[in-house]
Amino acid sequence: MRNRYFSSDPAQNSAALSLYESVKELPLICPHGHVDPRLFADPDYQFGSPVDLLIIPDHYIFRMLYSQGIPLDALGIPALLPVPNAVKGDSTAAIKVDHRQIWQTVCDNWRLFRATPTGIWLRDELAGVFGIDLKLNSVNAGAIYDAIEEALARPEFRPRALYERFNIEVLATTDAATDTLAPHQTIRDSGWRGRIIPTFRPDAVVNIDQPGWRESIALLSEVAGFDVRGYGTFIQALEERRVFFKSMGATATDHAALSAYTESLSAAEAEALFRRAMKGEATAKDAVRFTGHMLIEMARMSSEDGLVMQLHIGSFRNHNPRVFERYGRDMGADIPIRGEFTKNLKPLLDRFGNHPSLTLVLFNLDETTYSRELAPLAGHYPILRLGPPWWFFDSWLGMSRFLDAVVETAGIYNLAGFNDDTRAYPSIPTRHDVWRRVCADWLAGQLLRDFIDDEDAYEMMRALAYDLAKQTYRLDP
Amino acid sequence: MRNRYFSSDPAQNSAALSLYESVKELPLICPHGHVDPRLFADPDYQFGSPVDLLIIPDHYIFRMLYSQGIPLDALGIPALLPVPNAVKGDSTAAIKVDHRQIWQTVCDNWRLFRATPTGIWLRDELAGVFGIDLKLNSVNAGAIYDAIEEALARPEFRPRALYERFNIEVLATTDAATDTLAPHQTIRDSGWRGRIIPTFRPDAVVNIDQPGWRESIALLSEVAGFDVRGYGTFIQALEERRVFFKSMGATATDHAALSAYTESLSAAEAEALFRRAMKGEATAKDAVRFTGHMLIEMARMSSEDGLVMQLHIGSFRNHNPRVFERYGRDMGADIPIRGEFTKNLKPLLDRFGNHPSLTLVLFNLDETTYSRELAPLAGHYPILRLGPPWWFFDSWLGMSRFLDAVVETAGIYNLAGFNDDTRAYPSIPTRHDVWRRVCADWLAGQLLRDFIDDEDAYEMMRALAYDLAKQTYRLDP
Amino acid sequence: MRNRYFSSDPAQNSAALSLYESVKELPLICPHGHVDPRLFADPDYQFGSPVDLLIIPDHYIFRMLYSQGIPLDALGIPALLPVPNAVKGDSTAAIKVDHRQIWQTVCDNWRLFRATPTGIWLRDELAGVFGIDLKLNSVNAGAIYDAIEEALARPEFRPRALYERFNIEVLATTDAATDTLAPHQTIRDSGWRGRIIPTFRPDAVVNIDQPGWRESIALLSEVAGFDVRGYGTFIQALEERRVFFKSMGATATDHAALSAYTESLSAAEAEALFRRAMKGEATAKDAVRFTGHMLIEMARMSSEDGLVMQLHIGSFRNHNPRVFERYGRDMGADIPIRGEFTKNLKPLLDRFGNHPSLTLVLFNLDETTYSRELAPLAGHYPILRLGPPWWFFDSWLGMSRFLDAVVETAGIYNLAGFNDDTRAYPSIPTRHDVWRRVCADWLAGQLLRDFIDDEDAYEMMRALAYDLAKQTYRLDP
Repeated sequence: MRNRYFSSDPAQNSAALSLYESVKELPLICPHGHVDPRLFADPDYQFGSPVDLLIIPDHYIFRMLYSQGIPLDALGIPALLPVPNAVKGDSTAAIKVDHRQIWQTVCDNWRLFRATPTGIWLRDELAGVFGIDLKLNSVNAGAIYDAIEEALARPEFRPRALYERFNIEVLATTDAATDTLAPHQTIRDSGWRGRIIPTFRPDAVVNIDQPGWRESIALLSEVAGFDVRGYGTFIQALEERRVFFKSMGATATDHAALSAYTESLSAAEAEALFRRAMKGEATAKDAVRFTGHMLIEMARMSSEDGLVMQLHIGSFRNHNPRVFERYGRDMGADIPIRGEFTKNLKPLLDRFGNHPSLTLVLFNLDETTYSRELAPLAGHYPILRLGPPWWFFDSWLGMSRFLDAVVETAGIYNLAGFNDDTRAYPSIPTRHDVWRRVCADWLAGQLLRDFIDDEDAYEMMRALAYDLAKQTYRLDP
Repeated sequence: MRNRYFSSDPAQNSAALSLYESVKELPLICPHGHVDPRLFADPDYQFGSPVDLLIIPDHYIFRMLYSQGIPLDALGIPALLPVPNAVKGDSTAAIKVDHRQIWQTVCDNWRLFRATPTGIWLRDELAGVFGIDLKLNSVNAGAIYDAIEEALARPEFRPRALYERFNIEVLATTDAATDTLAPHQTIRDSGWRGRIIPTFRPDAVVNIDQPGWRESIALLSEVAGFDVRGYGTFIQALEERRVFFKSMGATATDHAALSAYTESLSAAEAEALFRRAMKGEATAKDAVRFTGHMLIEMARMSSEDGLVMQLHIGSFRNHNPRVFERYGRDMGADIPIRGEFTKNLKPLLDRFGNHPSLTLVLFNLDETTYSRELAPLAGHYPILRLGPPWWFFDSWLGMSRFLDAVVETAGIYNLAGFNDDTRAYPSIPTRHDVWRRVCADWLAGQLLRDFIDDEDAYEMMRALAYDLAKQTYRLDP
Repeated sequence: MRNRYFSSDPAQNSAALSLYESVKELPLICPHGHVDPRLFADPDYQFGSPVDLLIIPDHYIFRMLYSQGIPLDALGIPALLPVPNAVKGDSTAAIKVDHRQIWQTVCDNWRLFRATPTGIWLRDELAGVFGIDLKLNSVNAGAIYDAIEEALARPEFRPRALYERFNIEVLATTDAATDTLAPHQTIRDSGWRGRIIPTFRPDAVVNIDQPGWRESIALLSEVAGFDVRGYGTFIQALEERRVFFKSMGATATDHAALSAYTESLSAAEAEALFRRAMKGEATAKDAVRFTGHMLIEMARMSSEDGLVMQLHIGSFRNHNPRVFERYGRDMGADIPIRGEFTKNLKPLLDRFGNHPSLTLVLFNLDETTYSRELAPLAGHYPILRLGPPWWFFDSWLGMSRFLDAVVETAGIYNLAGFNDDTRAYPSIPTRHDVWRRVCADWLAGQLLRDFIDDEDAYEMMRALAYDLAKQTYRLDP
């Protein structure tokens, strides 16, 4: 019998299986993702309905259904309260749709997910986590719903129980710089042995053109315990927050920007920009420059406090104004743009590219940068590591193209291993499984073509599945 | 025996064959192309010599021969009459070359087409349409010429007879907005049961910087039956032409632009630009803005009249001034440029991206946009469908890369199926055959790797071969 | 037994082997590279230590070790003498490290090169050139060092002896426009039958913003025998140098630029720019324009004197200022940027694109240009040929992607065959071997899928391995 996902060439299939099996029992390292820490704070946390768990939070799923004309309302996506510039006539009251009916709609249209990672993940998740081998379709919809619902009622489907069953070693959440990390504190206080750690994400206070920026600064003042009213106190507050996050177990920060543009501003310029922003007078260009400057500042702080810096670029957020106005952020309407690193990142690299203890992990959504810029940069600068394929590219072919594009130039030891980057907690095992299988199949190809030998292949397999993520994110306890 | 084009892995080869055979008998849907409708207006239409049929109209062929130093004159390409800024000393009189000699030259150099789609198409066309299995080379040139010539004299090689034999269900031509569609009327009047439909292509009246634009506007006035002298009458004329095209069976429009740039102009701005253009004073920037505005206007009209909108971007036309001056347009000297959709198309999508009945099919010549922009856009916006790989990418590897790049993100149900986009009528069957084989091989790979199951694979095969084109272009009678 | 690098599919593996064996004995054509001609001027030239030969000159190797935190000093890379703007406190005295210790460090970290071309090349080179089959690792480091050292002491490891053994037919060096070509003269005078020819590379005198440009112009005056003080004498000096290079056997020129930007300046503008540069007042924009103009001038000269023109674009040189200041140029810190040809090269093509005797070979570091711009351009313009994948892309997958991306549009007869572009003389056989194996495997795939037949495949194999390079670079004696 062939083994799933591997090449259909018998020799490669069998070599891939051996490699895969050599890492199958290794724990999962989850250094970057968006699982809500409250899942673990309450030992008796319950997931709600199958739709609450699997559909409503998953923009991979509802964006595809939306693309085929199915309204988000019909999928249970809650509309926001009325907003000032909402389209006139739109009802903003959440429309109540029966979850069993939503599930039926999803299953009626499941063909849309054929040959997509979402299709693979949910199938594997149902089989692996819930023990459900039925195919997602109109006929089976009800039976699958019942089976999931029944499973979720059982204690072994509490998040903490799943953490053990999934064999997770560590799971990092992503948290606003202003977050009090109360759920993390609760977890620590509970004596539970799971390792859930926060990640410092300051975008909301750094991106001065974001709606709500001043509210975020007010919140920063509050958690800092002093008034953030200028650039100096802003930097001080961020530094103190980082100390706090680190004390709560954080080993990394995360930063999102439209581009990798960096620029060193003088203290006076930074101060002036910050003050303009506080008055609500910052321009779009001001915002780009300030973000570019803050990325360098964050690299400076990381070089001092040892937090691993992650940079995600290239997503044009909230591209569809109708969807944004009615449903808010993260609704599947984020579209990639072209990326550039060689010129944009140079000011940061000029200052910190050769730093002996800084690590900067790069992610982006433009595959053309892989071989042209990212691999050559990571194959030279000591601080750089390449994050795994992100978002749309967290897929079998996306990962295969990534390995093809970067390893010849950067090797595998300049990679950051895998991270699942998901808010869909029960999909974590299948996501890691896909990565491990891609790596096994890719290495099997290299092995059979005699580019590497057995010793190389097995050591690379382990590194890609486990070691690189743990080392890059400094997760040794 | 292995089956042509499919993977050499025996399991995949055999799975691909089964999938391919399941759609082999389905009719051909040809929703976009450049076949001359006059072929069908005259029931006794004759194709001329083998060179008239296969070489002179095919810029894929003569551009390659030209790239190796063979003059276009030696291939029978007619030079234009003297033009004002012709290179001095050039003879513009068409040079008469014996067609049998041209054919010999082409065959003497046929090695140039090894491993190219043109090479595949002509070989398959000779075998499949003409029953000629000889290899194209110097020795066989004469015999092949004779055999084609003899075939073309027979009644079963009239265009209408081939239409039946090719099993075409519908074939759309591409026609200027100012076209009277006389051949289409003749076809309709003739009672022949073939379905030849026009497509509304207004580029010549929309692109205000094109040479001859004012002449096109004059022609538009003529066919409209009123004077187009301002933006208002221009829009009115276009709307009326669309009504006429629709009455003649059109289900789609087609628009070509250098980029996907869109911009909503105010009525006053549009009027001002139009009037500057009428005075011959429009700048290059005016032209870009006006085209960008008209794309949005065309989306507006399509949202109202239901014509499917096609947009082809990214070809730098007539790149070689020497070739353009001597031979005119479409002479194999069109070179792709970088494409961008995320930002450029946003103004159009802001207005019409969520429209319930609009369909916009996107094509371009920059493969980097496939996974980065096109698939994410099509995987979210209800109006978008992705056209098949275009022009240089209408090839085995081009199609394979396309499926690899877009399906994981957009699925297959946001694709527009296949269109052959050809003026080379007898190449239609082989072009569809290549597409169907690519899809069969690609799906076989997915199937053997267990990404999809048998039911998925066969349904996807049919959709890609037939249903998606028919549905996207609204071709149900 | 499977054959190295070829597909693991048995049928393809065996077809690839047959194709490969058909060209195995053909001599190596090396039309572009950076081997030092002094190797051949002295019949008794000795290579120094294994580290002198294999590590210190190879930025592919030390950049990767550097990326993992190993200082260049520890690898024996000599620091420059103090430079004006050196980082304060840096010791610029070369640090002496024992070569046997350096070799041990390299071998201790050899895992970094798993699945990289560098890893393949050195393994193949040790086996093929030195007869050493030990794996590079900590344990074998000493034994390998000893074996290389012992080999290098033997007469059959003199460069001239290796030239015979490598079966090189011709090897081109790359030489500054101001070079006296003394080693080339010595070789010619020696009566040795090896064919070592120079290549005219005028970058240092053409790029007016390069540090040391005025010194280069002074040197140009010196070798020209007259004062280069304006644009006219500059052009005259270049033309005379080309005559000299040609008299010394050169058949080609080589030009490197950040982009493919070309622009025809008037004689007055060119003169003005040149004079500004002589006064040290040229701006960055002046430099771009002057380089763009000189590329057209070089095409003009090539159209007259028949030297094949090579253009390498897209490398952002000396990206890391710390490494540049301490160690100088070519230290593994050159990072690719995005490339563009369709618009940038148009002014040059407008003037010379249809020239009957000019050949322009294009290279770049942005793979996205392959299918989008380079193949369409080469598939039309008679003067263009595509150079093989360059630098980071001179790898198994890089070459495979190149063939996949360009052949369908340009065919193989618009390619320039292979060049090794290396300064690592003993790596030449393995580099050609990888190219020949890639081509064999790629053609085997085409053959088994019935895109081409046996006759096509064997003729294409020979063309790719030998003929195309020889013809493109006009190397017939």
